[in-house]
Amino acid sequence: MKGVILSIAPDVQIVDITHGISSQNVEEAAFVLKRVYSYFPEGTIHVVVVDPGVGSERAALAVRTKKYTFLAPDNGVLKYVFDDHAEAEVFRVTNRAIFLERVSRTFHGRDVFAPVAAHLSRGMKVEEVGERFSEYVRGEVRKPVIESQEISGEIIYIDKFGNGITNIGEVLLVGRNVLRVQIGSTAVHGLSQTYLDVPVGSPLALIGSGGTLELSVHRGSGKERLGFRVGDPVAVVLK
Amino acid sequence: MKGVILSIAPDVQIVDITHGISSQNVEEAAFVLKRVYSYFPEGTIHVVVVDPGVGSERAALAVRTKKYTFLAPDNGVLKYVFDDHAEAEVFRVTNRAIFLERVSRTFHGRDVFAPVAAHLSRGMKVEEVGERFSEYVRGEVRKPVIESQEISGEIIYIDKFGNGITNIGEVLLVGRNVLRVQIGSTAVHGLSQTYLDVPVGSPLALIGSGGTLELSVHRGSGKERLGFRVGDPVAVVLK
Amino acid sequence: MKGVILSIAPDVQIVDITHGISSQNVEEAAFVLKRVYSYFPEGTIHVVVVDPGVGSERAALAVRTKKYTFLAPDNGVLKYVFDDHAEAEVFRVTNRAIFLERVSRTFHGRDVFAPVAAHLSRGMKVEEVGERFSEYVRGEVRKPVIESQEISGEIIYIDKFGNGITNIGEVLLVGRNVLRVQIGSTAVHGLSQTYLDVPVGSPLALIGSGGTLELSVHRGSGKERLGFRVGDPVAVVLK
Repeated sequence: MKGVILSIAPDVQIVDITHGISSQNVEEAAFVLKRVYSYFPEGTIHVVVVDPGVGSERAALAVRTKKYTFLAPDNGVLKYVFDDHAEAEVFRVTNRAIFLERVSRTFHGRDVFAPVAAHLSRGMKVEEVGERFSEYVRGEVRKPVIESQEISGEIIYIDKFGNGITNIGEVLLVGRNVLRVQIGSTAVHGLSQTYLDVPVGSPLALIGSGGTLELSVHRGSGKERLGFRVGDPVAVVLK
Repeated sequence: MKGVILSIAPDVQIVDITHGISSQNVEEAAFVLKRVYSYFPEGTIHVVVVDPGVGSERAALAVRTKKYTFLAPDNGVLKYVFDDHAEAEVFRVTNRAIFLERVSRTFHGRDVFAPVAAHLSRGMKVEEVGERFSEYVRGEVRKPVIESQEISGEIIYIDKFGNGITNIGEVLLVGRNVLRVQIGSTAVHGLSQTYLDVPVGSPLALIGSGGTLELSVHRGSGKERLGFRVGDPVAVVLK
Repeated sequence: MKGVILSIAPDVQIVDITHGISSQNVEEAAFVLKRVYSYFPEGTIHVVVVDPGVGSERAALAVRTKKYTFLAPDNGVLKYVFDDHAEAEVFRVTNRAIFLERVSRTFHGRDVFAPVAAHLSRGMKVEEVGERFSEYVRGEVRKPVIESQEISGEIIYIDKFGNGITNIGEVLLVGRNVLRVQIGSTAVHGLSQTYLDVPVGSPLALIGSGGTLELSVHRGSGKERLGFRVGDPVAVVLK
């Protein structure tokens, strides 16, 4: 992909976000994208190639928001982008003149997304890569349920340190008094400010760097120690 | 290596192809190089440092083709480059004046290949890094055997998804009617266009993004499911 | 981190040294930094974010040496830099005006080190990111013990090939006659020049690319074959 991009746009700055998404895991890719995209400079073209449906009739999308362009297969991997940006304009990428001459059935990252991204970086407009498209897969963003004494969410991602990241945003907890956080059979008491607030090896709950509640173990793996998995329910019990 | 390159050529664009070749696996490196090099812009200098013979008398090669320069140890890692490019000119890298001052016995990537690549990127000619060399290791490219009813090849690489990539090129199959593909005790019927042509969990054979026959499992690992290894024979039975 | 850096300094050249340090392993990070930093061009800003104490009161350091600036948490990860550079000037990073607006408790790499590095790359002086600081963690650099017939050191790092790298520098062995190198119950006879000096599968000792004694197995893993771990004593017996 980088060779293709640099053949068309030799001066572009390419940044790898990750090569560590587990195979064909669209949910994981969606989440990792959400965590990082807004830190990039205005004008960045974000290219996402987690694409289990490659070779089928699934569309290739180009999505323009106020600050960015996103290129991705139409499989829900942009669900958080759609959730964050009501202004998003969605196009279906169809201009074969800017694809590689030979398009394989199994690697559109190289043959479609890379050359289209390169042309966009040189000033081509999204309108020129395809036509407006409304039948795209929006994807479901699971929101926490808020009750007077309890907020119920779930683990949506486990990072490489074994921290369990939830969909319960900081804003829901500001000014609230957290009695405990319940994950499976474990009750974590209160909210910590930092890993160092609890002894080594103890579980804790804190607001992570992505701005949501996380379940961790100080100098350990929350995943291994507490045995949680993506999708497991998490309840915050309030005083 | 990057520090050395940027110390000599501060404005060069460096691209990592992979850091994931298994230790000292020259065959694997040769294959990965083949899959990607031709997508890079004309003038690219490809540096390959899979070098189990480092510190021995093995030569360091600089190879010029019509579009590229390749730097690599003389161990066969460029075999597909030689196979693809009859015009390749081979030089032995001997100009110690452009190596690092202290050349270790175990890391010529940093001490030899990186500074030579940096000097080439600044316009130095291959003739200036050493002398023409004919005694290089050409390496063996295994070709499929073509009979009237059957094409016999082998698995030459297994990618990170567990797909088994063969040396049977698309051009051998165009317009032919594939009855089945035999790998070990598994017979895969016909040729698929895409993973989605078969149910989840089923094996399939298709033309992969590198333009050769691949053996896969839809949303699974062909390697685990079909139990193949690099070097295993693959037969395409034609109607 | 890269998005943050490029938002402030769009033309900077970013190089990844490694993403492979084991979680929160300050010793390993210190060693890897030592092995590479001096190969980078003068003016390079080295950013180290192995930071198990993030969110605590630990300082963030900016360290200026003759050729480089280092940004790192105050946890000893710069111990080899301090050991190599008596001229190092140490500052505590405190200028919140150049941090991200919202500083998380768990990811100062993105919220503090990245923006500070970007500003330094654009010409900001170290004096402007904070104030001079003398109470920093210097860290302990373990030195080998030299006796008339024996040099005693230890394994300080095991690389991805399984080579055990010691703290016994080449300079201690130049012109000496090495009888054997003792690691656990294994005696390796003499010093090799290259892996190829011994049969495949045999252990050897040589001067590695970092300029210190290493214990290896030809085409194998020293770690697995000889069973050593970081911290294990290594003795060089001289004639």
